[in-house]
Amino acid sequence: MLPKGFKIGGIRSGLSKNEGKKDLALFISESPAHAAGMFTKNIVKAAPVLTDIERLEKGGKFSGIIANSGCANACTGDKGKKDAENMCSIVEKSFDFESGSVLCASTGVIGQYLSISGDDFEKNVDMLKNNIGVSSENEDEAVLAIMTTDTFIKKTSRKIEVKNGEIKIWGCVKGAGMIHPNMQGLHATMLSFILTDAEIESKTLQTILENSADKSFHCVSVDGDTSTNDTLIVLANGHSGTGKLSEADLEKFIEAFDDITLELAKSVAKDGEGATKFIEIEVKNAEIKNDAKLIASTIATSPLLKTAIFGADANWGRVIAAAGRAGVKFDPNKVDIYIGGIHTFKNGIALNFSEEEAKKSLLKKEVKIVVDLKAGEKSSKYYTCDFSYDYVKINGDYRS
Amino acid sequence: MLPKGFKIGGIRSGLSKNEGKKDLALFISESPAHAAGMFTKNIVKAAPVLTDIERLEKGGKFSGIIANSGCANACTGDKGKKDAENMCSIVEKSFDFESGSVLCASTGVIGQYLSISGDDFEKNVDMLKNNIGVSSENEDEAVLAIMTTDTFIKKTSRKIEVKNGEIKIWGCVKGAGMIHPNMQGLHATMLSFILTDAEIESKTLQTILENSADKSFHCVSVDGDTSTNDTLIVLANGHSGTGKLSEADLEKFIEAFDDITLELAKSVAKDGEGATKFIEIEVKNAEIKNDAKLIASTIATSPLLKTAIFGADANWGRVIAAAGRAGVKFDPNKVDIYIGGIHTFKNGIALNFSEEEAKKSLLKKEVKIVVDLKAGEKSSKYYTCDFSYDYVKINGDYRS
Repeated sequence: MLPKGFKIGGIRSGLSKNEGKKDLALFISESPAHAAGMFTKNIVKAAPVLTDIERLEKGGKFSGIIANSGCANACTGDKGKKDAENMCSIVEKSFDFESGSVLCASTGVIGQYLSISGDDFEKNVDMLKNNIGVSSENEDEAVLAIMTTDTFIKKTSRKIEVKNGEIKIWGCVKGAGMIHPNMQGLHATMLSFILTDAEIESKTLQTILENSADKSFHCVSVDGDTSTNDTLIVLANGHSGTGKLSEADLEKFIEAFDDITLELAKSVAKDGEGATKFIEIEVKNAEIKNDAKLIASTIATSPLLKTAIFGADANWGRVIAAAGRAGVKFDPNKVDIYIGGIHTFKNGIALNFSEEEAKKSLLKKEVKIVVDLKAGEKSSKYYTCDFSYDYVKINGDYRS
Repeated sequence: MLPKGFKIGGIRSGLSKNEGKKDLALFISESPAHAAGMFTKNIVKAAPVLTDIERLEKGGKFSGIIANSGCANACTGDKGKKDAENMCSIVEKSFDFESGSVLCASTGVIGQYLSISGDDFEKNVDMLKNNIGVSSENEDEAVLAIMTTDTFIKKTSRKIEVKNGEIKIWGCVKGAGMIHPNMQGLHATMLSFILTDAEIESKTLQTILENSADKSFHCVSVDGDTSTNDTLIVLANGHSGTGKLSEADLEKFIEAFDDITLELAKSVAKDGEGATKFIEIEVKNAEIKNDAKLIASTIATSPLLKTAIFGADANWGRVIAAAGRAGVKFDPNKVDIYIGGIHTFKNGIALNFSEEEAKKSLLKKEVKIVVDLKAGEKSSKYYTCDFSYDYVKINGDYRS
């Protein structure tokens, strides 16, 4: 269900080594749209990230996003930067868009050059132009084209009623490994694109995006590795015709937007490389919210905890040990821990619980871990996945 | 080759569930020794750690260390604390040592109680008393008794000639998982015990230990998880008869001591859970030493890099990506990266290198990664191991 005025699609261009896999996606708006973006805070930023940051900092409106998989165009120096700009300008020319109005994103192997010299890329963009549309198939093709080790299509949408009509928001995300997004304002290999036909100017859109990412994408880790290419872009083209939103309607919009980013973020953890289980970690009753987040993220990135959950082992010892090294002060003697609904640890001491029942609970596809600090009223949730043999397999031989 | 005046040994007491595995070790000095210790900085500290900290803070001399595997005596509350103290006092009584003069250490499953009530533990200490000695077999038995998932005995020794004779230093270490030691002064499930017959008073010994750990144990990571039980204790009993060391002799002692801690620390990484390869990461030519260490440790704890090395994949992209998220400022366009002796990355750009040659180099048991920042003159080394299927296997089912 795409918002009005957008067309998207994906084709196979040959940029990915995976025979037959779609690898080039295009998202265009029929008229220039307000845009907001967040990018990786990694000091090593891929060429498309540097290109987008420059373009968004200049301001103005944007007409589309061209994105590829199979090559990250990272650590490619000046040639890589020119390739990224060229990628955009070929789309701009083909669609007769204003120069500088197309954004770009890449994901895949670091250090390889994009093959977009010569006429090949122009032909591919021509092919794409004939393959974009508004159908569910078009959506799937666009998302398939930005996927790398992802195992399923991650997209979602919301429709909200506002005073003057109806607004749609659509979002997709790609990412399964090198996932620990850490992005900032205009300066984010998770790629996520959100499209809406709401009328919201860039500055407001940026604020909505940043607040939303803090509660969603920034609460997800697959392996603790922050990519060189993380990119999160929103386009708002106003085609809903509902005009500028009232404060109440903006609230509604934000709620739906937050819903989308959280659903997309969770789907990234669910599709984590080699994942067999989705893990939600909630640290509650902390004195300070950031303490709760730090403890939750430390637990979520502990290889020992993640392998224990893979083994369906209610190993609360690894939960409390990870919490203890988070760099946050708390009283271990007040802590309670619940794993898969089972109370395993109370006031700093192990409880007797049925290992059989615990195993049964941990064999489910979703596992919730709750750490109760009993020190205050703040809480924070973090999302991750287990650490399996397949994670090692996928990453032990990624380039070949 | 034990230093003079020490007797050590290990027996099977039944504390470990592994049938037949030795699980109780004793290290005693014939006369009270100066001591220094470093313990985990994890906010959740095991009962033996709390006990040792109290005893060392009181000062005085120490006669021995009792240590077990199979049970960490962590998260065991007041009962655990009493068990730890009881463990020490049973040894004190048996040997007629002064009360408070024995230290203790535990490693194993978190949250279980030590079974040292009743007469059993006394009988075990009696058995130990008959099984300690100064032979190489005694050394091996002591180290075997503190091992958990370790696959080989990690011990080493040095002999140095000083003005008035000869001094010996002997050290052992245990640890393969939950390894990312982060210890501090009197306040570390790596267990390491170092014995020497040098005459060095506690304050100097503590300084030597802390400086040495910063260059060795604090530069090792298996999985980034800091344990609740990390313990590093040195006993110096003066039995060499060489008396107080001259400044020149102290320098010699420190050199040998640093040699031992570095060898022991490296052996921990070599025996990392499921490890097939030892990885040395050197970050050189940084402006600030701590920046070099932060980058090296971030690379060493990247699951993506560790799985790539397991797969013998010269994936420098993961090296630069990890460096970039270390939270340290550097110019990526100046960086060179060498993996297994192969120059893979120069001034921020990929080099063409023979994948075949790289694969050959990475199939060796030891892999060296060098990151040259070309920004200054400081450098730092960090030691780790690869991330294999067996890591997941070992940790997916540790408790059962």
